[in-house]
Amino acid sequence: MDSRTVGILGGGQLGRMLVEAAHRLNLQTVILDAPKSSAKQINALHAHIDGSFSDPKAIQKLAEECDVLTVEIEHVDTKALEELEASSKVEVQPSWKTIRTIQDKYVQKSHLASNGVATAESLSVESNTSARLEDIGRKFGYPYMLKSRTLAYDGRGNYVVSGPESISDALEALKDRPLYAEKWASFSKELAVMVVRRMDGVCISYPTVETVHEENICKLVYAPAPVSGVIQEKARKLAEKAVESLWGAGVFGVEMFLLEDGELLINELAPRPHNSGHYTIDACPTSQYEAHLRAILGLPLHAHSTSLATPSTHAIMLNILGPSYDTVARKALEIKGATVHLYGKGQAKIGRKMGHVTVVAGSIAEAEYQIQPLINAADAYKMSPAEQAKVSFAATYSSPPKCPSARDPIVSIIMGSDSDLPVMKAGAEILKKFGVECEVTIVSAHRTPDRMATFARNARARGLKAIIAGAGGAAHLPGMVAAMVTLPVIGVPVKGSTLDGVDSLHSIVQMPRGVPVATVAINNSTNAALLALRIVSAENSPLGREIRNKLDKYVSDMESEVMAKVERLESGGWEAYTVKK
Amino acid sequence: MDSRTVGILGGGQLGRMLVEAAHRLNLQTVILDAPKSSAKQINALHAHIDGSFSDPKAIQKLAEECDVLTVEIEHVDTKALEELEASSKVEVQPSWKTIRTIQDKYVQKSHLASNGVATAESLSVESNTSARLEDIGRKFGYPYMLKSRTLAYDGRGNYVVSGPESISDALEALKDRPLYAEKWASFSKELAVMVVRRMDGVCISYPTVETVHEENICKLVYAPAPVSGVIQEKARKLAEKAVESLWGAGVFGVEMFLLEDGELLINELAPRPHNSGHYTIDACPTSQYEAHLRAILGLPLHAHSTSLATPSTHAIMLNILGPSYDTVARKALEIKGATVHLYGKGQAKIGRKMGHVTVVAGSIAEAEYQIQPLINAADAYKMSPAEQAKVSFAATYSSPPKCPSARDPIVSIIMGSDSDLPVMKAGAEILKKFGVECEVTIVSAHRTPDRMATFARNARARGLKAIIAGAGGAAHLPGMVAAMVTLPVIGVPVKGSTLDGVDSLHSIVQMPRGVPVATVAINNSTNAALLALRIVSAENSPLGREIRNKLDKYVSDMESEVMAKVERLESGGWEAYTVKK
Repeated sequence: MDSRTVGILGGGQLGRMLVEAAHRLNLQTVILDAPKSSAKQINALHAHIDGSFSDPKAIQKLAEECDVLTVEIEHVDTKALEELEASSKVEVQPSWKTIRTIQDKYVQKSHLASNGVATAESLSVESNTSARLEDIGRKFGYPYMLKSRTLAYDGRGNYVVSGPESISDALEALKDRPLYAEKWASFSKELAVMVVRRMDGVCISYPTVETVHEENICKLVYAPAPVSGVIQEKARKLAEKAVESLWGAGVFGVEMFLLEDGELLINELAPRPHNSGHYTIDACPTSQYEAHLRAILGLPLHAHSTSLATPSTHAIMLNILGPSYDTVARKALEIKGATVHLYGKGQAKIGRKMGHVTVVAGSIAEAEYQIQPLINAADAYKMSPAEQAKVSFAATYSSPPKCPSARDPIVSIIMGSDSDLPVMKAGAEILKKFGVECEVTIVSAHRTPDRMATFARNARARGLKAIIAGAGGAAHLPGMVAAMVTLPVIGVPVKGSTLDGVDSLHSIVQMPRGVPVATVAINNSTNAALLALRIVSAENSPLGREIRNKLDKYVSDMESEVMAKVERLESGGWEAYTVKK
Repeated sequence: MDSRTVGILGGGQLGRMLVEAAHRLNLQTVILDAPKSSAKQINALHAHIDGSFSDPKAIQKLAEECDVLTVEIEHVDTKALEELEASSKVEVQPSWKTIRTIQDKYVQKSHLASNGVATAESLSVESNTSARLEDIGRKFGYPYMLKSRTLAYDGRGNYVVSGPESISDALEALKDRPLYAEKWASFSKELAVMVVRRMDGVCISYPTVETVHEENICKLVYAPAPVSGVIQEKARKLAEKAVESLWGAGVFGVEMFLLEDGELLINELAPRPHNSGHYTIDACPTSQYEAHLRAILGLPLHAHSTSLATPSTHAIMLNILGPSYDTVARKALEIKGATVHLYGKGQAKIGRKMGHVTVVAGSIAEAEYQIQPLINAADAYKMSPAEQAKVSFAATYSSPPKCPSARDPIVSIIMGSDSDLPVMKAGAEILKKFGVECEVTIVSAHRTPDRMATFARNARARGLKAIIAGAGGAAHLPGMVAAMVTLPVIGVPVKGSTLDGVDSLHSIVQMPRGVPVATVAINNSTNAALLALRIVSAENSPLGREIRNKLDKYVSDMESEVMAKVERLESGGWEAYTVKK
């Protein structure tokens, strides 16, 4: 396949999964890291290098065995890499310049900002003093994030400065580190995209995913992210823009914040395979690990595609950490669609990533159902205060305050074609009037059957409570969606230019036993929206009660309106009554 | 996960893929085979055993390092395994008894026959003489298969005795081997099922696949096999019955012949992972390799499922052999949905399995489209006669004569419910009258949406040329199938108990621009069948011409029928004319 030997700086789990991918392509790898590290265990073809990836001499030794050097961690000695690249003895991918830019998070942010890539506003701290931090507080307001510029990961080296009173604690926690400050980003979700950058700078991406963190460590990854297609696409473009601004080839992990107003900001980049891309091993034709190897060696990567997503990629990844990892892994063997990946690591210290499980399913909803027992098993292991004290980094971070979750839609109005919008928008107006979040989009059963299936299969996972589907003509959309998800589906027959909408009505209403569609009158999307509201109102929750009250008021307003007419008609007499349109 | 060490007899590609799966579960493995063999390359955690899996001393040495012994090849010394199992020093899975039964193909066949498992009729040769082979010829007729009882694989050790005149050549080719004879099985396809046998004897299976051989070596595997669901299920049951008759745990490859009359016969068993199950790595949640490890260690395997199939498993596997392997592997990097697996083997001798490629797609049709360039690349490398002479086993086998392919349906009549059958069977009768193979089945858009999608997506790959879909009421089936496959779809509105079938007619006929359904009159499945025949007749092929002639005759018969009435009416006068029902 390729006779060049790849040297990998770092032999942790990312290195191990790189080696696994390399074996499948008969590619030679040599690892630099501590003896018996994860990646070394699975390659008996070479004598590996024992030592540190931040030691120039060890890197030099590795370079002598290899043709191409790459990294599975960014905390490496980039001077050694710079010299090696200059000497032309060995290729370095991605470039040392990229690794150095990313290594220092403040330099990284400045680089992104100067390339017009949206990222949180940052200030260099320069001198670690209270005066400087107070100064930043005046500029950014509180809370703001104080972060170590280097060697920070999994929340280690981050501190939330919640107000002037917490400045001294923050300085105490991070005093010996080079620092910078970041303006607070009030996000509703964290998203990530794995981007593959080819030798020629062209970028292609895996799907946008959502990452869920717990105690600053990635816990879950949802692929694709349960956000609208518009946001998924926006995230992909932003990630690619960021990676296009760098140098050299490889995969890049791009972490982003989805703000409450729908805007996206880059959080940080990783110049290597990333935790948020583990799921690609099981859910994509080519994993991020193989993609990285192909990119750094200039091997082809599906030359004819513009994306590495497949319509059937629905996966959830769960990291398994610390002492309970084996219990969770064993439990996963009983779960349909689950694949276990353990890393061959030694001591299962608290918070240490020992492996992960990916559940692949026909939909995110199904994956959520399958993975829940595993999340329960992982959560069952709670840290006692004594155990928490053992965690060396526990003092250096503090969880950010809980942000309100994004106001996700609870009702979806879908229609087969934009020509249905004039009919359907009356329903959207009703929902808006009731203050209920809804989305309005086009899903065509006949022209986008896969999109329809994805929509229906994901509807529950996305938090939808009812679906209003408008369709004209053969009008298959409501019935097909109802066949694929057991949420209440409300069908609105849309009157076409022929047959007066009777065609659509029959198509929607004449469903077989077992698959109901709540059909309303032809063109009557108002009633569809009201029916959706009645469904939501049935729920015993603050929202349910709120809607119930509003519906009661709506009904009584209607009644008042009619009663006013009753009075006018009865008092004035029918002869004098003029019907007001 | 499990602290026991697994010893593997054999370190070829099957062993390598077992080790890969073991690493993901932190399971320890030790390999017995030649130095640097495929499997050893990817495990640096242990010193492996250099030696032969047929050498009792080497097996003894391996046993000292392990808790459980298993095999990746059946040609091992079973006496050594028997003694080890008896000594209770180590567990042997599957049992030596299973391996010994399978090792000798005549014993294997006798075992299956005595357990009531359908297999080709076999006779032991006993003395390798012309007289005995002539005797067998009189019993079995010609051709029959002469096979080596032991150490035969990939066609090595098989000889087709085409008539009495070829007996001396057959004896010459196989003279030094213990032989048996098999009655000729005139098969239309070769199928295979991977069965997992748990410790408790319970069997669960992967989907039924079709294997395609070229020069007696497996070339392609189609998963699932393009045969009807009824045959898939029958194959699964037969395979499980065969494996249930054995002893111990592990995965088993079960190869079968699908005869022209639809019957199935077991060809042979393998007590280990099998070439026909490679695709499970990429297309199933748990690969055959991991399933084998879980079975032999008694670890859970999706305790709640009865099958390892997923509805979205659609894959084709191509073995890549000999000197051209690297060319084909590199080409595969450009193919959407393709995953390359190379085995780290040394010299790429002709016919040697160097790796495989699996293409996973949304349907078999799509997988076929994607993999075709790779098959072309593999086929482009043709053996010259000089090269053929180099192949040591070329003299010992002969390709079986080509069998006619199964009479697969070319028209499918589907309906949403069995209540549509009285209407739809008229169409089936027309097709039968025309001698056109058709299938008649139930596919419900609303009650079996996944089955419908699978049906539609596979329709082209299965060789269908037209689909007749009958449906009543909301009648979504024809339109949805037309949305998912670009074959001509003919819709038959079925009159229900209300609305006189107008509902179905509207639902079927009012399709949007871009997705046509050829709609015929309410309840008129006869016309639907005739339309399908017209479609087939448009094809420039022997079948097309045959149908064209029959259609012409059908039309002229209709004409004659009417003309007879014309004559009777005109000659007898309208007053005397009685309408015959």
